[in-house]
Amino acid sequence: MAGKKQPTQFGFTLQSSDAGARTGILHTPHGIINTPVFMPVGTQATVKSLTPDHLKELNVQIILSNTYHLYLRPGADVVQELGGLHSFMNWERPILTDSGGFQVFSLGELRKVTDDGVVFRSHIDGSQHTFTPESAVAIQEQLGADIIMAFDECAEPHDKEYSAAAMERTHRWALRCQQAKTREDQALFGIVQGGIFDDLRQQSAEYISSLDFPGHAIGGLSVGESKADMLHSIEVVNRILPEDKPRYLMGVGTPFDLIEGIRRGVDMFDCVLPTRLARHHAALTLKGRVNLSKAENARDPNPIDPKCSCSTCRSFSRAYLRHLIIAREMLASTLISIHNIHTLVSLTALLRQSIVEGNFESTAESILEGMK
Amino acid sequence: MAGKKQPTQFGFTLQSSDAGARTGILHTPHGIINTPVFMPVGTQATVKSLTPDHLKELNVQIILSNTYHLYLRPGADVVQELGGLHSFMNWERPILTDSGGFQVFSLGELRKVTDDGVVFRSHIDGSQHTFTPESAVAIQEQLGADIIMAFDECAEPHDKEYSAAAMERTHRWALRCQQAKTREDQALFGIVQGGIFDDLRQQSAEYISSLDFPGHAIGGLSVGESKADMLHSIEVVNRILPEDKPRYLMGVGTPFDLIEGIRRGVDMFDCVLPTRLARHHAALTLKGRVNLSKAENARDPNPIDPKCSCSTCRSFSRAYLRHLIIAREMLASTLISIHNIHTLVSLTALLRQSIVEGNFESTAESILEGMK
Repeated sequence: MAGKKQPTQFGFTLQSSDAGARTGILHTPHGIINTPVFMPVGTQATVKSLTPDHLKELNVQIILSNTYHLYLRPGADVVQELGGLHSFMNWERPILTDSGGFQVFSLGELRKVTDDGVVFRSHIDGSQHTFTPESAVAIQEQLGADIIMAFDECAEPHDKEYSAAAMERTHRWALRCQQAKTREDQALFGIVQGGIFDDLRQQSAEYISSLDFPGHAIGGLSVGESKADMLHSIEVVNRILPEDKPRYLMGVGTPFDLIEGIRRGVDMFDCVLPTRLARHHAALTLKGRVNLSKAENARDPNPIDPKCSCSTCRSFSRAYLRHLIIAREMLASTLISIHNIHTLVSLTALLRQSIVEGNFESTAESILEGMK
Repeated sequence: MAGKKQPTQFGFTLQSSDAGARTGILHTPHGIINTPVFMPVGTQATVKSLTPDHLKELNVQIILSNTYHLYLRPGADVVQELGGLHSFMNWERPILTDSGGFQVFSLGELRKVTDDGVVFRSHIDGSQHTFTPESAVAIQEQLGADIIMAFDECAEPHDKEYSAAAMERTHRWALRCQQAKTREDQALFGIVQGGIFDDLRQQSAEYISSLDFPGHAIGGLSVGESKADMLHSIEVVNRILPEDKPRYLMGVGTPFDLIEGIRRGVDMFDCVLPTRLARHHAALTLKGRVNLSKAENARDPNPIDPKCSCSTCRSFSRAYLRHLIIAREMLASTLISIHNIHTLVSLTALLRQSIVEGNFESTAESILEGMK
């Protein structure tokens, strides 16, 4: 593990911009991250069905892992005792942990929110637990990711009263997270809430920006609102968030979302989509999703995408992938996950390059056109 | 695919021997195999949970795949249309297919054997099918492995009447397989049967040897008889099988079996053990099996085996593997399979080296001693 007294290990350097889109370098104790970046999700300290070597071959720069899940299983103390998350899962590149806020929000009837924190029941065994801003930070300090997130309250995005209350609470909790933080080798990002309401989003972006976090996240989106509302909220928030800090759009990551998010100045994305789709036999391409279990693939000698350079498309036919799916072989998830993550990582790299070269808009338009 | 008219692509060269143990080189259209060799099983055209790259990193020289399973799903015609098994599963090294004989034997009440062949019901959908010596060869020619197996009848090993009848039938079928064979880029191995009865085993070894197959297999063992009976039968058969042809002990592959088989002049082994154990959370070591799901591993920072050089032991703790198991993560099977196959492949390589160096017996004894 890196030493505790090296705040200079963090830093964000904007490199180039093209219209609203930008590229940068994020420095962390476990290396640099070229932004914009897509972060695959390793919920339980594993990006499902892939080895760390697979992720490195895919040029994955940083992964996200979930505090809620690791707290319950194997326990943050176990991860800490085993040397922290990097050592535990043998991933030496950067890691970001969420705060558990969104996960407990997703528990619905199983959780109760007060100003102090959230009392919830485990989805595994029904046991009762409490997360507070202080404990969420403490757990993330035990896990030891490079970037940790403030504990926030996510609200139903169309309910203004609820959104306002959750935003206010998120603001109070952001301060408490800053005060609770003790490790200097982790960067704590603040989270903007406010549902789909411009005034709330503006107010939240202004307040969170005022707290001088080293990075900012846009939370509470992609949770039921329309695409138009989501993109509008990103615009409203990013007009206010400072340009010299990274902007992270939480839980969002379709190809469309990546393009439209980057266009609006987002630097970081995470999503379970590529691995979840893979387990449901769907391949992500820039021309849509391919259901590989369909009979039409049974004798198809072509790869998922003839233009794709991932190891799955270089080596395996649709017919073979369909066979693995029908025969219920685990390798299907592995091979499709490789392709799906490659699709998002390489799309992000392509868009990054287009920003550097000053042709982001035409590149984005051409990809979006191909999706129609 | 290799051309059809190159019988010279096959050949077995004995290299060295030490007491009964021997080393050799088996030439195939997809490269050479250093014997003795352990062949992992890829039942459905995939060694479960591993990519071909994993297998290459493990120095796997040849894999076995199952005719019965591939015939039912995806169908031998599909595999042929996709360029054969090597191309289908992206494995460019040698492949051996079994004949389906043992698989249909294992179906029990679902199959009926006559002199013509076996009528059986699919374990997948109950549909009725027939394997004959001719169709078993034809299917294996469609699959396109380097080494194919004669269609045989496996019997309950303690039933002498049944064993004798199955042996006689296996002999008649061996001839029919030879006559049915058309491809010259595949080597057809004959199979010795005879249960645990010395006279039957001798008779079978003599008859099968007389047919001039390029290699010989010992079938019908490890199906319920004692270890002592199994080892004795191997001795009886290998005293008769010609020394200049490879000897393949079918379906056998614990560390103990590999040592005792090699000691008795066996050159080739296959077994589902390493991948099946992995899916049941058990790691194979030369000191026994380790049940990784046990609570005692929850905080254990050590690898499965500190002396093991596999990528799993170099990278992951028992605590992490146990976490993956408890959290039902697919990566557990992958990582434990890597370790288990490494154990058998590296044990075989170690024994091979000891034969070359003339110290097989002391090496074998020392490993067996460590197992106690």
